[in-house]
Amino acid sequence: MTYCVGLKIDRGLVFMSDTRTNAGMDSISTFKKMHVWEQPGERVIVLMSAGNLATTQAVVSLLDERTKAVTDRHEKLLETPSMYQTVRLLGDTVKEVIAQSSPAGEKADSYFNASFILGGQIKGSPPRLFMIYPEGNFIESTEDTPFFQIGETKYGKPIIIRAYEKTMSLAETVKLLLVSFDSTLKSNLSVGLPLDLLFLEQDAFQVGLKKRIGQDDQYYRTISDGWSNALKTAFASLPDFPG
Amino acid sequence: MTYCVGLKIDRGLVFMSDTRTNAGMDSISTFKKMHVWEQPGERVIVLMSAGNLATTQAVVSLLDERTKAVTDRHEKLLETPSMYQTVRLLGDTVKEVIAQSSPAGEKADSYFNASFILGGQIKGSPPRLFMIYPEGNFIESTEDTPFFQIGETKYGKPIIIRAYEKTMSLAETVKLLLVSFDSTLKSNLSVGLPLDLLFLEQDAFQVGLKKRIGQDDQYYRTISDGWSNALKTAFASLPDFPG
Repeated sequence: MTYCVGLKIDRGLVFMSDTRTNAGMDSISTFKKMHVWEQPGERVIVLMSAGNLATTQAVVSLLDERTKAVTDRHEKLLETPSMYQTVRLLGDTVKEVIAQSSPAGEKADSYFNASFILGGQIKGSPPRLFMIYPEGNFIESTEDTPFFQIGETKYGKPIIIRAYEKTMSLAETVKLLLVSFDSTLKSNLSVGLPLDLLFLEQDAFQVGLKKRIGQDDQYYRTISDGWSNALKTAFASLPDFPG
Repeated sequence: MTYCVGLKIDRGLVFMSDTRTNAGMDSISTFKKMHVWEQPGERVIVLMSAGNLATTQAVVSLLDERTKAVTDRHEKLLETPSMYQTVRLLGDTVKEVIAQSSPAGEKADSYFNASFILGGQIKGSPPRLFMIYPEGNFIESTEDTPFFQIGETKYGKPIIIRAYEKTMSLAETVKLLLVSFDSTLKSNLSVGLPLDLLFLEQDAFQVGLKKRIGQDDQYYRTISDGWSNALKTAFASLPDFPG
């Protein structure tokens, strides 16, 4: 499994993903699930993936290869005129890969399924954040739904629902994401360290912050230990059942 | 969906279940998922169920009917010599119902699946708590795994993992369960109020506390509002990301 979150704040877009891939309990590997295409000053595009690794790697490889090809009839990720056209390109690539993986003529098998979070900004437009379904169609974040999660989403959802505010600073947003990831890591073996963190500041058109957070990261340890204690204190602060 | 938790503390067994049943988004009903068989002074048995409502109702009806029958070749829930024989009787009844629901000769269809938490105490033995799988086999709680959840379990798991202690009082345990249920209720529409709460005090051999908790329950509202604020305070108490 996997856990990825893309979150929109007033200051830009924040992305976090884990790196564990497993095929059964005894076949665990570390794979990066966050991919970046950047044309500094003009556009930055970030893609995170969950689901079948062969599918997600094929999608990323195709996008990458076509972007680098000198001549190619395919549209290129760094040349799309808008984020909307970018997410459509991704959706089409997902459909193409699924069609190749599935037996001819049959409906796409859920075994090959993958979902994605795509975010970025192209000069002339605001930052946009999308979630792409295994079928290749997609939705965009709004004021009411300012974040997307893919993979093992349930453990880490309650804290985001409760603590997110769009006026948050980057520092607060990273704290929120780490708490959400820590709750997931503690509950589910299929999500694992290290974590990838990336920040796209609004109108910067380049990666603002990119960091890999591992077991020995001092801040992660502070949050992980601190959150356990803070939760216990919060819990103790509520009145016991009177009846 | 459903959410039920059975939890073992030094003082006895605590059970909580929601009451929402849904077949699609527009077919929502309230059904009790907690059932009690009691022979005061001798035994109390509590059963909670999740999954296909037809299956769980059939299991409960069969157990109930056979317990009341004057002469019957089947074993009776109030006459089993031990909790182990009680959970075996439940497992056999689950298999019997699934076999009747599924097409002849075929493997049990997951569509008819149901899982259960069974707990109770019979005079002469300590209280015991079991989880029964859809296949009819089961596991028992231990010191290391002192609680079971069935249904929509993920949202409410992190707080139980972090705050549970076996020396908790009943008042603290109810608070913990309400926080866990509130997180689930806020995240998933298929889990709904009112909640059923039941406490079996060790060696009391009768129901110690039984309460239905609805939207207008004063303590539930205190916990639900208080937990949102306490979480925000806990979150604010952690240091922001320095990098």
